[in-house]
Amino acid sequence: MAAGAGRRRVPARRTALLLIDVINDLSFPGAGDLIRQADAMSERLARLKRRAVRAGIPVIYVNDNFGQWRSDFRQTVNHCTRRGSPGRRLASTLRPTRRDYFVLKPMHSGFFQTSLDVLLGALDVRTVILTGIAGNICVLFTANDAYMRRFRILAPGDCIVSNTARENTAALVQMATVMKADTRPSTDLTFG
Amino acid sequence: MAAGAGRRRVPARRTALLLIDVINDLSFPGAGDLIRQADAMSERLARLKRRAVRAGIPVIYVNDNFGQWRSDFRQTVNHCTRRGSPGRRLASTLRPTRRDYFVLKPMHSGFFQTSLDVLLGALDVRTVILTGIAGNICVLFTANDAYMRRFRILAPGDCIVSNTARENTAALVQMATVMKADTRPSTDLTFG
Amino acid sequence: MAAGAGRRRVPARRTALLLIDVINDLSFPGAGDLIRQADAMSERLARLKRRAVRAGIPVIYVNDNFGQWRSDFRQTVNHCTRRGSPGRRLASTLRPTRRDYFVLKPMHSGFFQTSLDVLLGALDVRTVILTGIAGNICVLFTANDAYMRRFRILAPGDCIVSNTARENTAALVQMATVMKADTRPSTDLTFG
Amino acid sequence: MAAGAGRRRVPARRTALLLIDVINDLSFPGAGDLIRQADAMSERLARLKRRAVRAGIPVIYVNDNFGQWRSDFRQTVNHCTRRGSPGRRLASTLRPTRRDYFVLKPMHSGFFQTSLDVLLGALDVRTVILTGIAGNICVLFTANDAYMRRFRILAPGDCIVSNTARENTAALVQMATVMKADTRPSTDLTFG
Repeated sequence: MAAGAGRRRVPARRTALLLIDVINDLSFPGAGDLIRQADAMSERLARLKRRAVRAGIPVIYVNDNFGQWRSDFRQTVNHCTRRGSPGRRLASTLRPTRRDYFVLKPMHSGFFQTSLDVLLGALDVRTVILTGIAGNICVLFTANDAYMRRFRILAPGDCIVSNTARENTAALVQMATVMKADTRPSTDLTFG
Repeated sequence: MAAGAGRRRVPARRTALLLIDVINDLSFPGAGDLIRQADAMSERLARLKRRAVRAGIPVIYVNDNFGQWRSDFRQTVNHCTRRGSPGRRLASTLRPTRRDYFVLKPMHSGFFQTSLDVLLGALDVRTVILTGIAGNICVLFTANDAYMRRFRILAPGDCIVSNTARENTAALVQMATVMKADTRPSTDLTFG
Repeated sequence: MAAGAGRRRVPARRTALLLIDVINDLSFPGAGDLIRQADAMSERLARLKRRAVRAGIPVIYVNDNFGQWRSDFRQTVNHCTRRGSPGRRLASTLRPTRRDYFVLKPMHSGFFQTSLDVLLGALDVRTVILTGIAGNICVLFTANDAYMRRFRILAPGDCIVSNTARENTAALVQMATVMKADTRPSTDLTFG
Repeated sequence: MAAGAGRRRVPARRTALLLIDVINDLSFPGAGDLIRQADAMSERLARLKRRAVRAGIPVIYVNDNFGQWRSDFRQTVNHCTRRGSPGRRLASTLRPTRRDYFVLKPMHSGFFQTSLDVLLGALDVRTVILTGIAGNICVLFTANDAYMRRFRILAPGDCIVSNTARENTAALVQMATVMKADTRPSTDLTFG
């Protein structure tokens, strides 16, 4: 299951696509590099999402609530896609639709103190495709928790970004080695 | 701390008011009795909420998501307050404001697979005032989990309803006896 | 599934028998009534356990650690079965064997901050038979959590005791009504 | 708090020393390198433990139960220190005493489905010193969960080993960077 060569056919059944923290205003000091990488990644991830939707794979936004316990996700989307938001391109390109699911997370892992496990159970999911930012923080923390809950993990390396390429690579290696994640690029995955 | 006689002054500091499943369309078979009780209770609970807000006590809606993983809480409010909703009076009287917090729960307890514990920690809360419906189900399950997490519990008996008065009383007795909850009516509580 | 009349055949497959807090020294003020009931119950529960073992049903002791974070379960067994322990008869009659599993719990529910859920998953269990003490506290809290995790619940009324018969009945009614537990006596259950 | 130069005085109050998976028979294919590193590390960790005990810092063994749901920790200790166990030197050098606490974990993180959080709360701990094996698996997973629960983390680099030095370094960098862990060696830490 490691980051193999060649294409892989992923059964649409029992699989979900998770977009982690992509609805993000990216307004923190030193975010310049991350923004550039995230912008470049956003189109690739949007394509992956479109293919997943066509194959009937549920799409789940697993997103920080940024301490905004009062607001709903729609407000967060509006905030992040507003004119002047550094995360505008990322959030606009990946704007959720009415068919997408979302889970707000208070900390780094998508499973920590959230309903994600219940939702995946309700959808009968056993394989998660992890994408988003940051690869070495929220994606990795989520991968840890997915692995302990015995989910199979795909972590397409071209749909995950971190502050630096070095940190992103280290995170992908960690997921491939310890969590047996398949990290081949999204373009090598087909659904059916 | 048991359901004592007389008034009790509750410090506003470190206290939160929880409204459990009050945004509810109450459209299930045999809900007639519950609706009548909930309607009668809604004004009492609205008064308690107003007094809590004035005292600076945070108000948290802990609400079933009714399997609607895609919708946000605003849509649930709209659905429950729509013309023809059996829960319209309850949900309208207790309609959340922008200042209120909300936590969606997938199962009975407000703590099960939700962010409630993290939110209460962020608000530095140690005492929870539990209100809403149903007293012998979601309120009781939430009380159990609050008790195991060492929260002090107030469960004002006039702001909690169940399918039958008998079940409500049994639940209040259980909370008072096992979880040392104070079940005196909301009118005996003052904040300050 | 409610407390029906007549016998019920419970498939041994995917079922586990849980003994809650039966390794207990029962040395607390006012335990007299509970001790008498527990002593009377211990033989019935021992018979149920023997039949479960014969049918190949795994037996799991879910037991308070009584704040003894340093001791192992064997020490707790020795302590509770020592000469002079008020819980001696209960703990001796139900002394665990090498084949039994055990899970130490720090609070009331057997699921709260324990490995019980992982163990039940590893054993592929979907139905739990809840027995032990006290019916309206640790057994009930465990039932709540089992129900939210979608286990089917049997709670044989003759193998569960509480401080008072009234509290025991209230707890059984709560389990039957809210958690759809089957509360018929152990003598009406057959395994196969 | 990063891996600074020089010595650091750690207050004994509210601090705990965690030994992760050191009671281990290390009998898996390709464990040769890990065994050599673990043997070399065991004396350093034993010294750190002795100093912690002298300072009154509680010591907690957080240990895999190796699927042995029936056995207690004492049996695991006996198994790992038996003649012929590849982990004999490690487990013997770090053999727990009656004063040490222990928490059995079913998966990688010490917090996942265990009582560790409750125990640390009962001991009023806010800073954890993480040691043991493997740095890039169980130590790192435990660090993630400690970080999300807002514990301060010390991860002395000379008391943590992984399959390879490269993986160990990557894990220490991850803990220092993302979780703000102090990774300076144990010899630079003083308690008081």
